[in-house]
Amino acid sequence: MKFTINRNMFLENLNNAMRAISSRTPLPILNGIKLNLTSEGLVLTGSDTNVSIEITIPANEDLQIDTVGAIILPARFFSEIVKKLPGKEFTLEVQDGLQTKITSENTEFVINGLDASAYPTLPEIPEDNSFEISGKLLRNVINETVFAVASQENRPTLNGVNFTFKDNKIKAVATDSHRLSQREVALKDDSQVDATLLIPGTSLVELARIIGENNPQVQVTPGDNQVLFTVGNLSFYTRLLEGSYPDTDRLIPTNSTTSVEFDLSELAKSLERASLLTHESRNNVVKMSLDVDNQSVKLQGDSPEIGNVEEELSFKNLQGDNLEISFNPDYLRDALRASITEGVVMNFTQPLRPFTIIPDKEEVSFVQLITPVRTY
Amino acid sequence: MKFTINRNMFLENLNNAMRAISSRTPLPILNGIKLNLTSEGLVLTGSDTNVSIEITIPANEDLQIDTVGAIILPARFFSEIVKKLPGKEFTLEVQDGLQTKITSENTEFVINGLDASAYPTLPEIPEDNSFEISGKLLRNVINETVFAVASQENRPTLNGVNFTFKDNKIKAVATDSHRLSQREVALKDDSQVDATLLIPGTSLVELARIIGENNPQVQVTPGDNQVLFTVGNLSFYTRLLEGSYPDTDRLIPTNSTTSVEFDLSELAKSLERASLLTHESRNNVVKMSLDVDNQSVKLQGDSPEIGNVEEELSFKNLQGDNLEISFNPDYLRDALRASITEGVVMNFTQPLRPFTIIPDKEEVSFVQLITPVRTY
Repeated sequence: MKFTINRNMFLENLNNAMRAISSRTPLPILNGIKLNLTSEGLVLTGSDTNVSIEITIPANEDLQIDTVGAIILPARFFSEIVKKLPGKEFTLEVQDGLQTKITSENTEFVINGLDASAYPTLPEIPEDNSFEISGKLLRNVINETVFAVASQENRPTLNGVNFTFKDNKIKAVATDSHRLSQREVALKDDSQVDATLLIPGTSLVELARIIGENNPQVQVTPGDNQVLFTVGNLSFYTRLLEGSYPDTDRLIPTNSTTSVEFDLSELAKSLERASLLTHESRNNVVKMSLDVDNQSVKLQGDSPEIGNVEEELSFKNLQGDNLEISFNPDYLRDALRASITEGVVMNFTQPLRPFTIIPDKEEVSFVQLITPVRTY
Repeated sequence: MKFTINRNMFLENLNNAMRAISSRTPLPILNGIKLNLTSEGLVLTGSDTNVSIEITIPANEDLQIDTVGAIILPARFFSEIVKKLPGKEFTLEVQDGLQTKITSENTEFVINGLDASAYPTLPEIPEDNSFEISGKLLRNVINETVFAVASQENRPTLNGVNFTFKDNKIKAVATDSHRLSQREVALKDDSQVDATLLIPGTSLVELARIIGENNPQVQVTPGDNQVLFTVGNLSFYTRLLEGSYPDTDRLIPTNSTTSVEFDLSELAKSLERASLLTHESRNNVVKMSLDVDNQSVKLQGDSPEIGNVEEELSFKNLQGDNLEISFNPDYLRDALRASITEGVVMNFTQPLRPFTIIPDKEEVSFVQLITPVRTY
């Protein structure tokens, strides 16, 4: 196996393939990156068994193929070496006994490789049910929901975001049982997709990074227990979570007894001040007091050791019954960070019933739910 | 005690005073910042007993004094609170029982203070022997030497940089017994200073940060076991190390049997590549082979598990005897990072004797010494 390749182009692809490689992998071979060189091009594969990434670099003037073959190289070192090589291109040659020579200008590295045949094979997913969606849309829906998945593993289905593609819409729901985020977006194309995918949150975070800031077309290919996302020359495989996702629709209240509107950024700043103290307390809880008669909204936080904070919030359209409600400020912070409108409406029913945060624009279908905390 | 102050101006001064505060302080009271308000202004004091910083903010339109007094506030929280207050200014008022109210627009914090009389008093150092030097010059001399102080504490004098002010020059020396950095700079003024100060490296790192990127005049006031540096409205006190500093002059070789010149940045990059592998090895050692007959210089590094690297270095003026020498690449990396010329000269005597790195400009007096490693 021998090839010469443009260093920066290779490094970019290598870094993308390495996103699938975990430092805490159960199989030592998965600390490696697989390079497979055929007459058509070079295929890089990285995997942590949950997520696998395969990237194809076609043969062209930036990749001169000498002899085909395959090798596994220690991923972290190999990328550090390529990053620090002096030249614009480098040559990689597998010698006898899996020793791999990497040369660029006057520098010559020799590193120990592993037999490529030992690398796990990726699943083959038939493309029968594949469909395309906008990368930007997918990335936004991920970022608007994924923070709400459970980080504990005692209810594995809650570690994923539940995507339903149906009736020309995506509906994505995530919940850790204390808070929930649900986003619905229309698909532009008149696609006849009908699929439900429960995808691990950790996989989605990587997928969103790979989609990046641009808006590439993403091909989605659902399989039995895997789904493949194809972005350009990159194939992103992730396992699907098993088990049935809870019926979250019934959790979302349909009416409210108190409601109020806030400017997103002002509410976020007030909340940050209140959290300064509550984060030092064993009970990380703020209290919001909504006084409809006097048209006043107060936010309070305290820590027995340090002190307390109280502030008057600016608001619009405070209606309904007076209410005092206590909740974890980090859940509201996460909800506000995910929000996509400049204003939000908070709808409450009772002090111990979940409340919702929704956009101040009716046409945006985005519901966040937070369960309050009992403080007495 | 009550005052109203410009928030950004206060925060900048508070952050500077907090540089003296360590999170691992032996005295809980030193987690606090002392505020002392007189009719002339507000004095902020932070200390970890090794270093103390006192900053005076004079009464003016940015500081309106209502009633004088003093308080100690938890430094980290207080600065977080001030950073996140909504308004351009804030009012601080000490209430009964040391409770301190901080108000800005609609936000009101109440935090628990401590009695200011419990705060340790700073040393009084007579100004008789004080002198002024350029802040930029002092900062550069610090940065060119301080990295070479010992981090272990078994020989406390080696934890400091030894400054000698004499004959209109500063001479600064630091060594951890494996490597040494010595810098001499002429003082511009015709000052008659004669002082030797052995200053802890950790204090100097903070002092260099406080001097910052500008070139303020710095007043140096040596005391018996403390030295005071005054920069504008900021007084920086540090203890001096006791004990006599070793006679380092005799360690620096005066002749050489092999010498070679390198471009600083090219040598640094080659060294970085070689270290990629040596950092993974138990022996963090690179080998430099200087072949005068064939006019070639090679650098090699290896790790038994990962592999090895070898490269031909570019150089100028290779003279003397052939030589193979092994050394810790991190010492050379540090020496090159501190270097201030584009080219450096390496002077060697024998494979197991210390070698020097000096600027390629004779007028710059800067010697770095590295002890090689025996590899057989």
